[in-house]
Amino acid sequence: MGKGKAIRIEPIGVVRNDFEEHIPEGYENLPSELVLKKEFSDALYRIEENSHIIVLFWMDRVEGKRRKKLKIHPKGRKDLPLMGVLATRTPYRPNPIGVKAVKLIEKEKNVLKVEGLDALNGSPVLDIKPYSIKHDLVENAKLPWWAKHLFNKEE
Amino acid sequence: MGKGKAIRIEPIGVVRNDFEEHIPEGYENLPSELVLKKEFSDALYRIEENSHIIVLFWMDRVEGKRRKKLKIHPKGRKDLPLMGVLATRTPYRPNPIGVKAVKLIEKEKNVLKVEGLDALNGSPVLDIKPYSIKHDLVENAKLPWWAKHLFNKEE
Repeated sequence: MGKGKAIRIEPIGVVRNDFEEHIPEGYENLPSELVLKKEFSDALYRIEENSHIIVLFWMDRVEGKRRKKLKIHPKGRKDLPLMGVLATRTPYRPNPIGVKAVKLIEKEKNVLKVEGLDALNGSPVLDIKPYSIKHDLVENAKLPWWAKHLFNKEE
Repeated sequence: MGKGKAIRIEPIGVVRNDFEEHIPEGYENLPSELVLKKEFSDALYRIEENSHIIVLFWMDRVEGKRRKKLKIHPKGRKDLPLMGVLATRTPYRPNPIGVKAVKLIEKEKNVLKVEGLDALNGSPVLDIKPYSIKHDLVENAKLPWWAKHLFNKEE
C-alpha cells in the first residue's frame, strides 16, 4: 500500500463546557454544548426526535509524540496489561478522534445541549450522528476483563 | 465563533472488500479487511480480546456538492420525512466520516478481518477502537419512527 493521501477536515463546530484540563469523574451526568457554525443550523432539523446522538470530536490537546505511541497501559495503570493503542480508548492514538454516545437534552438553533460528553472545552466537532441501533448498538460484546472493570457503567 | 482551523488527518490504513459501487443488502454478514500500514501492527496488540470494534472511515466517494446538502429524505425516500443531514446517517454530510460497530473475526499482523462494515472498497481508515460499554452502548435509545423501521436489525 502506498502512502495514504492526507484528508483535510473542516470542523463543523466546537465543544463548550467546564472541562479545561481533564475530563472530571462523573462526567457522564455533566452538560456540554455543541456550538455549530450557523451555516449548519438547518442540518440539525428534527435531530431532537432522537434521545441520543454520537459526537465525533478532535482531541486537539493531544499533540506530537503522544500520537506516536503504539502500546500503553490503559489509564497509565501499570497493574493493567500493556495494550496496543488501537485496542484501547486512549486519546494517545495516531488520529485522536473522540467518539461518544451522549444524551441529547435540547436544541436551540445551532446549539445542542448534551450530557455525558468526554471532550475538553474548545475541542473541534467533526460530525454529529443520531444514535443508530444498526450502526452503534452491540449487545453482549466481549471485552477484556480490565475494560469491563474500567468502563462499567455502574462504577 | 471564528472559522475553525482545518485538521489534517493521515489515514492509518484502507478497507478491502467486494463493495465497489454500493453497500449490498445483507452487508451485516459480509467480510471486509482493514489493512493497516505496517507501522501500526503493534498498535493492534491484544485487540483480538474484543469481540467487536468501532471503525472510523472516510467516505471518499462522497464529493463536492453532495457534502453541501443540509436536508434530505432518508435513503432518498420521499415517503420518509425531510431531515437535517446531521439527524440521519446519510454519507451526504459536511464531513463524511463513517462510524460502524463491526464483529472482529481475526487479526493477522497488520490486517483485521471483520464482518458488518458498510464501507466501500478502498475507503481510508481513520481510526479503530474497541467497542466500549461506556462510550458506545445505549440501551433503549429513542429514535424517530422511520429510523426504527429502516435500521431495525431484524429486517
